[in-house]
Amino acid sequence: MLRAGIVGATGYSGVELIRLLSQHPEIQVDRLYSSSQEGVELAAMFPHVANLALPKLEAIDPLAIAQANDVVFLATPSGVSSALTPQLLAHSSTLKVIDLSGDFRLQSPEVYKQWYKKEPAAQEDLHKAVYGLHEWNEKQISKAQLIANPGCYPTATLLSLLPLAQTDWVDAQSWIIDAKSGVSGAGRGVSLGTHFSEVNENFSAYKVAQHQHVPEIEQELLKQTGTESLVQFTPHLVPMTRGIFVTAYAKLNKSISQEQLQDLYQSTYEDKPFVRIRPFGSHPRTKEVYGSNYCDIALHLDERTGRVIVLAVIDNVVKGAAGQAVQNMNTMFGMKETTGLPVAPVFP
Amino acid sequence: MLRAGIVGATGYSGVELIRLLSQHPEIQVDRLYSSSQEGVELAAMFPHVANLALPKLEAIDPLAIAQANDVVFLATPSGVSSALTPQLLAHSSTLKVIDLSGDFRLQSPEVYKQWYKKEPAAQEDLHKAVYGLHEWNEKQISKAQLIANPGCYPTATLLSLLPLAQTDWVDAQSWIIDAKSGVSGAGRGVSLGTHFSEVNENFSAYKVAQHQHVPEIEQELLKQTGTESLVQFTPHLVPMTRGIFVTAYAKLNKSISQEQLQDLYQSTYEDKPFVRIRPFGSHPRTKEVYGSNYCDIALHLDERTGRVIVLAVIDNVVKGAAGQAVQNMNTMFGMKETTGLPVAPVFP
Amino acid sequence: MLRAGIVGATGYSGVELIRLLSQHPEIQVDRLYSSSQEGVELAAMFPHVANLALPKLEAIDPLAIAQANDVVFLATPSGVSSALTPQLLAHSSTLKVIDLSGDFRLQSPEVYKQWYKKEPAAQEDLHKAVYGLHEWNEKQISKAQLIANPGCYPTATLLSLLPLAQTDWVDAQSWIIDAKSGVSGAGRGVSLGTHFSEVNENFSAYKVAQHQHVPEIEQELLKQTGTESLVQFTPHLVPMTRGIFVTAYAKLNKSISQEQLQDLYQSTYEDKPFVRIRPFGSHPRTKEVYGSNYCDIALHLDERTGRVIVLAVIDNVVKGAAGQAVQNMNTMFGMKETTGLPVAPVFP
Amino acid sequence: MLRAGIVGATGYSGVELIRLLSQHPEIQVDRLYSSSQEGVELAAMFPHVANLALPKLEAIDPLAIAQANDVVFLATPSGVSSALTPQLLAHSSTLKVIDLSGDFRLQSPEVYKQWYKKEPAAQEDLHKAVYGLHEWNEKQISKAQLIANPGCYPTATLLSLLPLAQTDWVDAQSWIIDAKSGVSGAGRGVSLGTHFSEVNENFSAYKVAQHQHVPEIEQELLKQTGTESLVQFTPHLVPMTRGIFVTAYAKLNKSISQEQLQDLYQSTYEDKPFVRIRPFGSHPRTKEVYGSNYCDIALHLDERTGRVIVLAVIDNVVKGAAGQAVQNMNTMFGMKETTGLPVAPVFP
Repeated sequence: MLRAGIVGATGYSGVELIRLLSQHPEIQVDRLYSSSQEGVELAAMFPHVANLALPKLEAIDPLAIAQANDVVFLATPSGVSSALTPQLLAHSSTLKVIDLSGDFRLQSPEVYKQWYKKEPAAQEDLHKAVYGLHEWNEKQISKAQLIANPGCYPTATLLSLLPLAQTDWVDAQSWIIDAKSGVSGAGRGVSLGTHFSEVNENFSAYKVAQHQHVPEIEQELLKQTGTESLVQFTPHLVPMTRGIFVTAYAKLNKSISQEQLQDLYQSTYEDKPFVRIRPFGSHPRTKEVYGSNYCDIALHLDERTGRVIVLAVIDNVVKGAAGQAVQNMNTMFGMKETTGLPVAPVFP
Repeated sequence: MLRAGIVGATGYSGVELIRLLSQHPEIQVDRLYSSSQEGVELAAMFPHVANLALPKLEAIDPLAIAQANDVVFLATPSGVSSALTPQLLAHSSTLKVIDLSGDFRLQSPEVYKQWYKKEPAAQEDLHKAVYGLHEWNEKQISKAQLIANPGCYPTATLLSLLPLAQTDWVDAQSWIIDAKSGVSGAGRGVSLGTHFSEVNENFSAYKVAQHQHVPEIEQELLKQTGTESLVQFTPHLVPMTRGIFVTAYAKLNKSISQEQLQDLYQSTYEDKPFVRIRPFGSHPRTKEVYGSNYCDIALHLDERTGRVIVLAVIDNVVKGAAGQAVQNMNTMFGMKETTGLPVAPVFP
Repeated sequence: MLRAGIVGATGYSGVELIRLLSQHPEIQVDRLYSSSQEGVELAAMFPHVANLALPKLEAIDPLAIAQANDVVFLATPSGVSSALTPQLLAHSSTLKVIDLSGDFRLQSPEVYKQWYKKEPAAQEDLHKAVYGLHEWNEKQISKAQLIANPGCYPTATLLSLLPLAQTDWVDAQSWIIDAKSGVSGAGRGVSLGTHFSEVNENFSAYKVAQHQHVPEIEQELLKQTGTESLVQFTPHLVPMTRGIFVTAYAKLNKSISQEQLQDLYQSTYEDKPFVRIRPFGSHPRTKEVYGSNYCDIALHLDERTGRVIVLAVIDNVVKGAAGQAVQNMNTMFGMKETTGLPVAPVFP
Repeated sequence: MLRAGIVGATGYSGVELIRLLSQHPEIQVDRLYSSSQEGVELAAMFPHVANLALPKLEAIDPLAIAQANDVVFLATPSGVSSALTPQLLAHSSTLKVIDLSGDFRLQSPEVYKQWYKKEPAAQEDLHKAVYGLHEWNEKQISKAQLIANPGCYPTATLLSLLPLAQTDWVDAQSWIIDAKSGVSGAGRGVSLGTHFSEVNENFSAYKVAQHQHVPEIEQELLKQTGTESLVQFTPHLVPMTRGIFVTAYAKLNKSISQEQLQDLYQSTYEDKPFVRIRPFGSHPRTKEVYGSNYCDIALHLDERTGRVIVLAVIDNVVKGAAGQAVQNMNTMFGMKETTGLPVAPVFP
């Protein structure tokens, strides 16, 4: 059994990691760390984990973490792991680190600073990180010591765009990503923006043209395609807890058929168990991946307007965070990528 | 007091008309008509209207309707008023008719047939109808006998697009309307698509590139601007009851400033009490117009991508249906457009 | 026009008062007061009130309040009005004060202290307050200078229980009130208990046997019936914004018929426009009073168990707070109790 | 691997059985049966099960079912399994049948007829059925061929009541069960009562004093305690998809301490992995068991009123249906009761 630790165990990604790992056949959730709740039983804060025989929360001590674990998940707010990770890696050359925050996703410290308004990680540490979009970086992930686990929006967006972005069928400057997220994506911190009476029976956009996931999406499009893309990205808040829905638009450069489009996606993801390409023209719903690690994608072609519309759904807490992290861990340790991950969504 | 009748009183637009008209100082809701519930007390179906002293439901008899009312609202499914309206108008030259369905919105019978898959109204009847987008057609509405009350999506979309569409600032072929609606827009008919357990905690798109509101939007853009526009329109279903949110994207032809953009909208809607232009860069929420006849609009400019993003919210049952119908009625009878309409949204 | 002021205008009861008063024909909302937001435009915090021509928020100065208003609503947390009210009354013998908090509801300072864990109002000030349960205290309300506006739960509970409690049909020790509330009842303050992701798709009880509305209910039952009652009260939190549902159980002392029971309630509330007695055995729903000042009540008789079950629904923000306050104000100033209050609920 | 079949695979209990069994290490979901969808791929109706390698839906042929399976789950509406089960048992003496409907729960055909308004199963078939409340009937379940899987409300209610009902501490005539359920309990059939716009942001009671689970609860209380109990039962509909919350009240016959009460429940369920007794006085929430097979129980003692209040939560689709069915199957085949069942709820 591998020994896994979770730093930031009291956030939503943290407890989702616990849900997933507690059902994983090769993992022992050995240590839970929290910056503020040292000595507390997690079940006192989250009664749903009672009976899982979890250890008490411990303070974040880099040396102790490095010694006690084979793998550690950093489910911390941005700005924490940029400082913690170098210390962890300094204490152990074998410890594997999976960072769920945005700190190691952007390869340019300047770009990080501009969009996150925080101090970036050191350039040398950024070089060590592999971007953990499993379906596109599996080989690198298998050899990595440090994973920058993708953001929830970029996960759904990149899985939707990359097959098409690699062709010459669409205008790389024309991407519009109209994205919608459940409220859990905002985390467990209380604020008026996540107050039930303000969010329920309500719908809104936020951070129009200014969300920090824009450079992450553009960076990975460039890496995978060699072409600069320009992405218009608009996030919205849906009165539901879990789920991300992406509606992506691209202008066609040339005429293509439904079959060509469908074949492109099906062949790209043929061997990827967590990406399901729906029948052409269908309408996936977020609930159909709820609690699971799937990304479901459907394709539409509007000949009248000359556009492709790609629809994609994920569970933001699973494929958009903890689930993809476990998928990455599986590959880092030579296990099958699906090991221990739920393959049957909770429906209804 | 004007005598008002409602045909199709047992649908959601019908009962919303009753809510609004029962608080209107110049209107007596005199007659309620239903194709299937003759003789029934509406309060037996909708207990919330008990105490409003409403008449029983009557069968739909065109002659009787024409004689008993000064104005009649047709809150019927598409395909009903195309046949009923000519009969009503034949029986009375003074009766005013406000049709909330799509039957008289499209001026071309062929286009109607193509998008609605139903028999269109006769061309001569279509000529009589005035499109009831109040903020843009007030003068014609004031003289009309027959109003084609706009669809919910076109109302929010056109109010968002028209100021900009009348300039040469944006590419008329580049419009993308990513729209989101509460479930009440689907009406009261039962179906798996409106079943609570299927919709709650769920988000989806529907009728991608195929919604019947596309030609309505393009027709009115052409009428108001003289230019053919091409609109990409994607409706989505939000797990909430009321509210429409429109995220509209257009590619800029030239560089404009935030002030120019904001001024354009503020001056266009200066005298329009039901359109509120929010501060530049703000994020309106559907709940902020809940139960009211407002359309709130906010403007965003993304210099990085060269696009304008317009956000707009309405209550689909009010400004998107019954409220705009009452606003039109007010003008048709020479009353102030705001008469009897709620100006304070229900929040939270 | 009467000049009305609102202290605590930035809470949910405060903005609901603004919604109601802005549509009231005899009231001018003249002054808004806030302890923390002096100088701020309310529309900057609540965009839904834009266009209502409201004054800026002012600091809470008792003398200025007493001089500038004919009536003032105190929509403040418990513990504020107990200190503020004596100052207001000292400055003016004509100013009418309607306190929406719990500070003046309990006639015993000791009981207040025990259940609210706060300093009580002075006994002499408590004597001045009239309990504003309009349907039962109308005459006293009409002469009052200070109203203790009832709690949301007590309003629905007392309207449900009092007709029966005045008979000898039921055991006054057997009352069980199983109550359910939407989240707006918890106010606008942020906390984990009102965080969307914690409340949505979730149901829970809270303060079992310990809610501060227990003594308020028992006190009023005693006042109206002359008999000590013992009330078991359990509040629950429903994943919705507005609405209170009360399921009340009482053990019968004797056999009664459905007709007797129904007649009792119908005759009691015959002249009360805001209480609607539903047909015997029906099932009212909270949405059927949404946004309105109604309390809808339905009666059930279980002969198998020898119990009466009373179901009641109100909108907690209207009849349970701001609406009942306006109803009381109407009577205090000699207006019809329904003046300016919405009589058509927002449905769906 | 055991071969399992599901009759009624297209309902919510059916697809939940598929979710659970597809993650069960000892089960092969071999056959799916439907009365109306023969030949259809389940994923065409429920895209969330795509990738699970399920067989096509087959017609319901008793002989074929008996031959092809080791165990068959009947997830059918009431009135179906009463006829089907005898045929299944006639064809095979080894086939095990787990009926999720109400057809075999009530031992008296007359009582069934009275509450279900349908033809009952034959008395001789009723004798073969073991009531599958696992925590209380494990030994009988281990030897049974036919299981009457408990109703959702009775599961939560009986687990809450039985420890106390077995003592002489409470009045067996005083039970009041105020129960609240998510909408999935009403199944997948469309109706106005489950229409999103009618249920969302709404709360109601239904079938007050008339729900068919009343006799099931009273029967099992009698069986386990030897004493006739009288249960007042009121179900309510919560605007959420999954979850049952039970608030149970009983009048104390004598004074007991918090410790006695807590000890009673803890010792009763000491060895029961799916019942979690919360700390005394706590407030379990339905979301804390979401997607899992747990029943969480918390105890309250109101000395003021002389009552015990028991709070309990389950996921109605899991512990209240499919999960308990799998738990029963595990025991029927000599496996550990927890085998294959999720022990980590999905939160948030």
